[in-house]
Amino acid sequence: MHISPLLTDLYELTMLAGYLERGMHERPAVFDLFFRSNPYQGGYAVFAGLETALEYLEELRFTATDLEYLESLNLFSPAFLAYLESFRFRGRVSAPPEGSVVFAREPLLTVEGGLAEAQFVETALLNVINFQTLVASKGARINHAAGGAQVMEFGLRRAQGPDGGLSVARAAYIGGVRSTSNVQAGQVFGIPVKGTHAHSWIMAFADELTAFRRYAEVFPQGCILLIDTYDTLKSGLPNALTVAAELRERGHELFGVRIDSGDLAYLSRQVRAAFDEAGFPGVKVVASNELDEHVIESIRAEGGRVDIYGVGTRLATCAGEGGGALGGVYKLVQVDHSPKLKLTSDVSKATLPDHKTVLRVVDRQGNFIQDVITLRGEALSPGDLVYDPGNPLQQVRIPDAANFVELRSLVMEGGRRCRPPETLDAAADRSQEQLSRLPAGCLRLINPHTYKVSISAGLNQLRLSLITEVKDKFKTRHT
Amino acid sequence: MHISPLLTDLYELTMLAGYLERGMHERPAVFDLFFRSNPYQGGYAVFAGLETALEYLEELRFTATDLEYLESLNLFSPAFLAYLESFRFRGRVSAPPEGSVVFAREPLLTVEGGLAEAQFVETALLNVINFQTLVASKGARINHAAGGAQVMEFGLRRAQGPDGGLSVARAAYIGGVRSTSNVQAGQVFGIPVKGTHAHSWIMAFADELTAFRRYAEVFPQGCILLIDTYDTLKSGLPNALTVAAELRERGHELFGVRIDSGDLAYLSRQVRAAFDEAGFPGVKVVASNELDEHVIESIRAEGGRVDIYGVGTRLATCAGEGGGALGGVYKLVQVDHSPKLKLTSDVSKATLPDHKTVLRVVDRQGNFIQDVITLRGEALSPGDLVYDPGNPLQQVRIPDAANFVELRSLVMEGGRRCRPPETLDAAADRSQEQLSRLPAGCLRLINPHTYKVSISAGLNQLRLSLITEVKDKFKTRHT
Repeated sequence: MHISPLLTDLYELTMLAGYLERGMHERPAVFDLFFRSNPYQGGYAVFAGLETALEYLEELRFTATDLEYLESLNLFSPAFLAYLESFRFRGRVSAPPEGSVVFAREPLLTVEGGLAEAQFVETALLNVINFQTLVASKGARINHAAGGAQVMEFGLRRAQGPDGGLSVARAAYIGGVRSTSNVQAGQVFGIPVKGTHAHSWIMAFADELTAFRRYAEVFPQGCILLIDTYDTLKSGLPNALTVAAELRERGHELFGVRIDSGDLAYLSRQVRAAFDEAGFPGVKVVASNELDEHVIESIRAEGGRVDIYGVGTRLATCAGEGGGALGGVYKLVQVDHSPKLKLTSDVSKATLPDHKTVLRVVDRQGNFIQDVITLRGEALSPGDLVYDPGNPLQQVRIPDAANFVELRSLVMEGGRRCRPPETLDAAADRSQEQLSRLPAGCLRLINPHTYKVSISAGLNQLRLSLITEVKDKFKTRHT
Repeated sequence: MHISPLLTDLYELTMLAGYLERGMHERPAVFDLFFRSNPYQGGYAVFAGLETALEYLEELRFTATDLEYLESLNLFSPAFLAYLESFRFRGRVSAPPEGSVVFAREPLLTVEGGLAEAQFVETALLNVINFQTLVASKGARINHAAGGAQVMEFGLRRAQGPDGGLSVARAAYIGGVRSTSNVQAGQVFGIPVKGTHAHSWIMAFADELTAFRRYAEVFPQGCILLIDTYDTLKSGLPNALTVAAELRERGHELFGVRIDSGDLAYLSRQVRAAFDEAGFPGVKVVASNELDEHVIESIRAEGGRVDIYGVGTRLATCAGEGGGALGGVYKLVQVDHSPKLKLTSDVSKATLPDHKTVLRVVDRQGNFIQDVITLRGEALSPGDLVYDPGNPLQQVRIPDAANFVELRSLVMEGGRRCRPPETLDAAADRSQEQLSRLPAGCLRLINPHTYKVSISAGLNQLRLSLITEVKDKFKTRHT
C-alpha cells in the first residue's frame, strides 16, 4: 500500500519551507498523535494502522515527478525543492503494537525528530491511524456483539474508495473480524476470503431451484445458498432443503444458507428449525443486511439462530455514534527540549505537554485496572496519587498490589523499523486477549464503564504551570 | 488511480466460474446501477465517479500474480483460471456525464454484455460510483449552504484511507468544492491546492507574534494566519493586525486569517469589524472546525462574516443523515433479452425491469420539471400519463409544453470509451448549471421538495405483469 509523499495537506509543505528558511528545520521536536474521545461513545479503541504508517515513514521520498509538480505551483524556492529531493524521515517513533486496547488522551504515536520531518508526516499518519483504528474498534464491537458467532466483512461496495475497502478489511481483521469478501485484501494481507452468490445468480436461471442446483454442482463444498430472492420461507427454504438432500446423496453436506432481508431474528429461527427437523443440524445460517453491533445484539436478544453474520456498509463506513471519523490529532509537545502546551477554549482539554510514557496498571492476574500517563523517566509506584487530566481535583491512588506495564515501545529509530512487521494474526490475537482483560463494563456497547486514564503528579504539575504561564502572557500583553 | 481486478467480492468470481461451467457466460445480460433513496435525505444527488469507473473497465485484466493468488485459494478449476487470463470487459455502458443531477431509482449506469463480464464488474463499479456520488452530493450541499462564499476541502487526515482522501477531493470538486489541501489531489487531478499553517507553527516560536511575522516573511503573498492558538480575540487578532500593517509597509496585503475554534459566527463578526476598522477590508476571514452544510447555514443565519469555509471531516466522511454510505445497488434487469424483476419484502420497492431510458422533462426555459423512466424505444409525448414507481395509483400527466432530454448516453462500446475523458471543470460546471435548473425547494437541506421520478405506461405495465407472474409461481408451488 504505497503512500505518496504528496498525500499531505499543503500546509505541511509550506511549514516545512518556512522552517527551512528560518533554519529551524533540525530543531529537536516531539509530537504526539492521540484522540480526544473513544470512538462510537464506547469504552475503548483498538489501535491499528501502525505497520502501514511505518512503511510510509520508511519509504518516504519525493520523486522527480513530485518535485516537478511542486515547482509548478510557484510557491516554493529552488533551495526548498533541492532540500526535498534528499528529504527522508530519520526520526524515532514510539507506539503500542497493533491490536492494543487504547483510550482517549493517551499518546499513541510519539514522533521525535527534527521539527521539519516530524511535522511533515502529520497528515499521512493521521489519515492512516485515524481510519484503521476506527475500523478496528468497530470490528471489535461487532465481534463482541456476535458473542462467539463468526463475523465476515463484506463492505467493499459501500467502502469509501477502492483503498478504503482494502484498509477496512485489514483493520477489521485486527479488531477480530477474521474473514472478508474482498479478494484483493486476501491477496495483499492474506486474510481468508469468503463468499456466496448474488440475487442475480438466481435471476439468471428459469427458477430458484434450478439456480440452487447449478450452484451446488459447481461448488459442492462450502456451498452457501442465498434464500431470499423471491420469498425466504415459501420458496428459498424449501428449495434449499431439496438441494441439501440432493447434495447429501452425492456425498456432500450443504454448508449454509444466507438470509439477506426481512426479520432476521424470526427467519433465522424458522430456518434453523426446518433444517434441524429435516436432519441437517450442521447447515449454518448466515445473516446479512445493514448489520451492526446493535442490530446483532437485538437479533441475539430475540433468540435469533445465526451462525455467521455478514457485515458490510456499517462496518466499512464506521457508521454510528461519532459519525464515521476518529478525531485523532497530532500536537507538538516539545521543541528544543522545552515542553509545549496547546490551550483550547475549554481549558480542561488543554494538551498534555512534554515527552511522556503510558503505563498500564494491572493486577496480579494481569487484568487492567487503569492507565497512567507520566513524564518520561518519572517514577510511579503503587500508592501514588494520580490525577484526572480534565480536572486535577479528581484524584485516585494506585492500588498497592499493582504492577505496571509500558503500553508502548520504540518501533522506529533513525527512520528504520526496530523490528520486522508483525503478522495480522498477532495483532488480532492481541486485541482479543486485551479486551478480555478489560473490566467487563467497558465492553458494553451503550453507556460503557469509563476506564480511568490518569496523569502522574509530575505531568499534572507541569501542565498546571504551563497553563498559568500562557494565561499570564495575555494579561501582560492585552489588558 | 489503478483498480485491481481482485478489488471485488469473492462471489463475483464464484458466480463467474459458475456461469462459465454452465456455458452461460456469454448470454446477453443487462444490469442497472441505481440507488434507492437520495443521500442525506436530500432532494437530489450529483453523479460522480464515471471516469474512474470507465478507466477501470478499460484496464481490467488479471495479471499472472493475480491468477497465482486465485489458484492458491483451491477454489477454481484450471479451465476457469485460463479463461480469466484473457478475460476483458468488452461490453457497453450507458451513463449520464459526471456532475449530472440525478435521483433515486433512476438507472445511472446500465451495463450490457455477456452475463459473466457484466456481472463481474459489479463490486468495483459500486465502490467507485457509490462513494464519489455520495461525496459530490455532500459537496454540492455544502457549497449551496455557503451561498457564494468559497469552500475548501481539507478532510484528508480524517478520510477513509489514503485513496479515500484522493477520491474525496475529486468528487467534492465535481460537487462544487473547487479547492483542496490534498497535494496529491492537485498532482493527480489538477485541483487547486490551498493551505495555511498549523497550531504547531505558532507553538514552535517563542510567541504568536513572532510566529506570524516569520510566516508572513516566508509567504508574503496569499498569507493566511491561524489566529486561535492561544486566544482568538485577545491574542491572535491583535497580532494579525500588527502583521497586516507590517506587510503593507513592505508592499503586500495580508490575504486572510483563519479561526478554527469557538463561536465562529460571533468571532467572524468581531474579526471582520476589527480589520475593517483598521483599514483592511480586503482581509478574508476563513472559518473551519467540524463544519458541514448545517453548521454553515447557521453561521450565516447568525450574521457570521465568513469569506472562506474550510470543510474537512464531515465532507470527507460524508457524515450526516444516511450515515456515510450511498446504498447503490446493481441489479440484473434483462437476460437472454427477457426482462427480469427482483422482488423485495416490500413490493413497492421491486426493481424496474428491462432495458430503460431516462428522460428529463424540461420546460421551454430548460428548467427541470420531472424525470420519466421509460422502456428503451418506448415513445413518450406531452400529455401522456406517467406513474409513481412505488404506487401506480399515483399518476401525473406530462405537461403539454414539455420537452424531453435524455439523461444518459452510450459512453462505452466494445469495452472502449466512446469519447475521451471529460475535464473535472466540465463536470463541476455541469453540476452548478443543473442545480440552478432544479425547482428551488429541491435544494433545501432539510425536508426538501420531492422531485418527481415517474415510470412510463409501458414500464408500469411490464412491471405489474412480472410481479403477478412471480407471485403466482409461489402459489402453485407452495400451497
